Amino acid sequence: MKTPTTPATISFAPIGRVENDFPKGTPRDTMRARESSIILDPEFVPGLKDLEKEDRILVVFQFHLSEGYELLQHPRGDPSRPRRGVFALRSPRRPNAIGITEVDLLGIEGNVLRIRGLDAIHGTPILDIKPA
Amino acid sequence: MKTPTTPATISFAPIGRVENDFPKGTPRDTMRARESSIILDPEFVPGLKDLEKEDRILVVFQFHLSEGYELLQHPRGDPSRPRRGVFALRSPRRPNAIGITEVDLLGIEGNVLRIRGLDAIHGTPILDIKPA
Repeated sequence: MKTPTTPATISFAPIGRVENDFPKGTPRDTMRARESSIILDPEFVPGLKDLEKEDRILVVFQFHLSEGYELLQHPRGDPSRPRRGVFALRSPRRPNAIGITEVDLLGIEGNVLRIRGLDAIHGTPILDIKPA
Repeated sequence: MKTPTTPATISFAPIGRVENDFPKGTPRDTMRARESSIILDPEFVPGLKDLEKEDRILVVFQFHLSEGYELLQHPRGDPSRPRRGVFALRSPRRPNAIGITEVDLLGIEGNVLRIRGLDAIHGTPILDIKPA
C-alpha cells in the first residue's frame, strides 16, 4: 500500500482551560490528590451531553509551560534514577507536549466540569475530553 | 489566581506514522483485533529506551481523514442509537481530531514498533507514545 507523506505540522485549538490553585512547580502527586475544574468554552457545552454518566474521563491537555525536551530523561527529574527514553515516561518535556490523564468526574454544571486527579496546573489549555 | 488567556492554536509535528493493511472505512473492531506497526521517525529512536519493558502503551494519533464534527452524534454513526455529546464518545469527528488508544506492545526493532489493538488506518500520523 502506498505510504502517504507525513504532514509537517498539525494545529489544534484549545476547547477550554484548567482552573485550580496549583501553581507552577506543584508536585504531581499533590495535584493528583486534589480537585480541579475544567472551564469549557461555552460553544462546546452541547458536546457534554451524557458525559455525566461516566465516572472516569480522559482529559487531554497541553503541557503549555514545557520548553524543549531530551530524548533520554531521569524519571521525575531524579538524577539518582537511570535515564529512560522519553516515550517510556510521562514527562511533560516531550516532542509533542501532550498530557493525558484519567480523572474522576465529580460533576458537571453548565460549562464547568469538576474533576479529581488532574496533574495539570492552573491555566492549562484543554484539547479534548473523552470517556475513559 | 489570575486566569491566563487561552492561546488561539497549538501546533504539533508528527513523530511517525502507522503502517498496516487497514484501508479507510475498516470497522473499528476489525482494526482492534489486528496488528499494526508504528514507523517512528529515526531521530526519535533514542526516546524508545526501556519502552520494551511495557506490555501496554498509549498511542496518540491524529484522525487525519476526519473532516468537521457535530457536537451531538449517534454512537458509531448508528441512527437507531440516541445522540450523545461528542465528549461522551470516542468518535473521530471531534473538535480536535486526537485519537488515543491503549494497545499491546509486541516488540520494537530499530524505529519500528509492532503493536496490536490500534484503531487507526494506514498512514495515520503519530503524535506521541506513552506508557499506559
